[in-house]
Amino acid sequence: MLTLFHAPGTCSLASLITLNELELDHDVHLVNTMAGGTRTPEFLAINPKGRVPALKTERGILTETVAILLYLAQIAPQAGLAPLSDPFALGDLQAFNSYLASTVHVAHAHRPRGSRWADEESSLEDMKRRVPGNMTECFNLIETGMFRGPWVMGDTYTIADPYLYTICTWLAGDGVDIANFPRVHDHFKRMNERPAVKKALSLTA
Amino acid sequence: MLTLFHAPGTCSLASLITLNELELDHDVHLVNTMAGGTRTPEFLAINPKGRVPALKTERGILTETVAILLYLAQIAPQAGLAPLSDPFALGDLQAFNSYLASTVHVAHAHRPRGSRWADEESSLEDMKRRVPGNMTECFNLIETGMFRGPWVMGDTYTIADPYLYTICTWLAGDGVDIANFPRVHDHFKRMNERPAVKKALSLTA
Ligand SMILES: N[C@@H](CCC(=O)N[C@@H](CS)C(=O)NCC(=O)O)C(=O)O
Ligand SMILES: N[C@@H](CCC(=O)N[C@@H](CS)C(=O)NCC(=O)O)C(=O)O
Repeated sequence: MLTLFHAPGTCSLASLITLNELELDHDVHLVNTMAGGTRTPEFLAINPKGRVPALKTERGILTETVAILLYLAQIAPQAGLAPLSDPFALGDLQAFNSYLASTVHVAHAHRPRGSRWADEESSLEDMKRRVPGNMTECFNLIETGMFRGPWVMGDTYTIADPYLYTICTWLAGDGVDIANFPRVHDHFKRMNERPAVKKALSLTA
Repeated sequence: MLTLFHAPGTCSLASLITLNELELDHDVHLVNTMAGGTRTPEFLAINPKGRVPALKTERGILTETVAILLYLAQIAPQAGLAPLSDPFALGDLQAFNSYLASTVHVAHAHRPRGSRWADEESSLEDMKRRVPGNMTECFNLIETGMFRGPWVMGDTYTIADPYLYTICTWLAGDGVDIANFPRVHDHFKRMNERPAVKKALSLTA
């Protein structure tokens, strides 16, 4: 049995959607990040980094969206959510997801979580002012240079799709209108209609 | 033929070491990041994100350290640099590398590259003050909770080792003494002795 440690509204949504898409038997353990749920001794025993997502498996805990999504694709290979035996295509997919994790998610995090990197109120305000521009720059690149259509990597729905979708749910809060990126926006609307997405969004804290 | 776009002193070192370890035939195209080498039209045609590493392959360009390292492990499977057919072990390895990319590299980047996320001089100074503490926090977690020994993932040298090593080369500049992390320090010294590392370091701009 798999247990996902998930906080609604956060990046763990990508892992939850993927569990649903694959129809993998799983429990969800809701974590209230706003109430310090990632800082409790119980949660730190699960993930010493104090972050969601964490996925409990029979072999141990996995963390990091990029890794959990690959793991899920690999334990259900018949669903074809990643081109596991094509090194170039898999590298290309992991490059997209790694860009989301290391650059786009980080650009967003400077709004709610600036205190990870600076102390002064004026610095946190300065960081917040940059978030719309930085997110716009990332999404311009995605819209014009990375997104292939109809799915992120082209004809096939992969583990890049729920992850892009998840980050898109943050855009309005970041002060960015998703309609500025028509292909991404169309993808977002199609994702919203998927049963796996609706089911994942129905879980609230 | 593979061509690595590499800048000495940056995260592309991890990919270069791995090319050397695998004895894969390759060219290195040196990029001078300090002189704006990632902003030229020629380089942006290779990687519109304007960053190293980028790896030119016969099928196209790959970017992102996490993805390039997995690709290299997968095209030379006999070397065993990643447990490709064990989903949990591969997820565990990718989680380590993704943590380096999305958290540790980012913690470091707030010293040289704070202007990605804020404008005011006072904010950049504030960010710089936080770097030693943030890097120490990351390396305490690596030292006590993640690093297995003798290699990052345990008995076998994997694509996590050159990546951890690469980030360790930044610690002194970040104001952190690697000797505070004895197991990581020992790993660093053993990595320094590897021919693949010596050869990679001998390439200078
Ligand atoms: N690199 C990690 C980032 C995980 C992360 O930052 N999670 C956030 C939610 S999006 C979190 O747990 N924040 C709560 C906290 O920092 O206490 C990943 O991609 O999984
Ligand atoms: N997430 C990327 C980060 C790449 C990155 O930040 N590269 C830096 C060097 S460590 C770079 O090219 N900086 C030059 C610049 O920003 O112009 C990866 O892991 O490959």
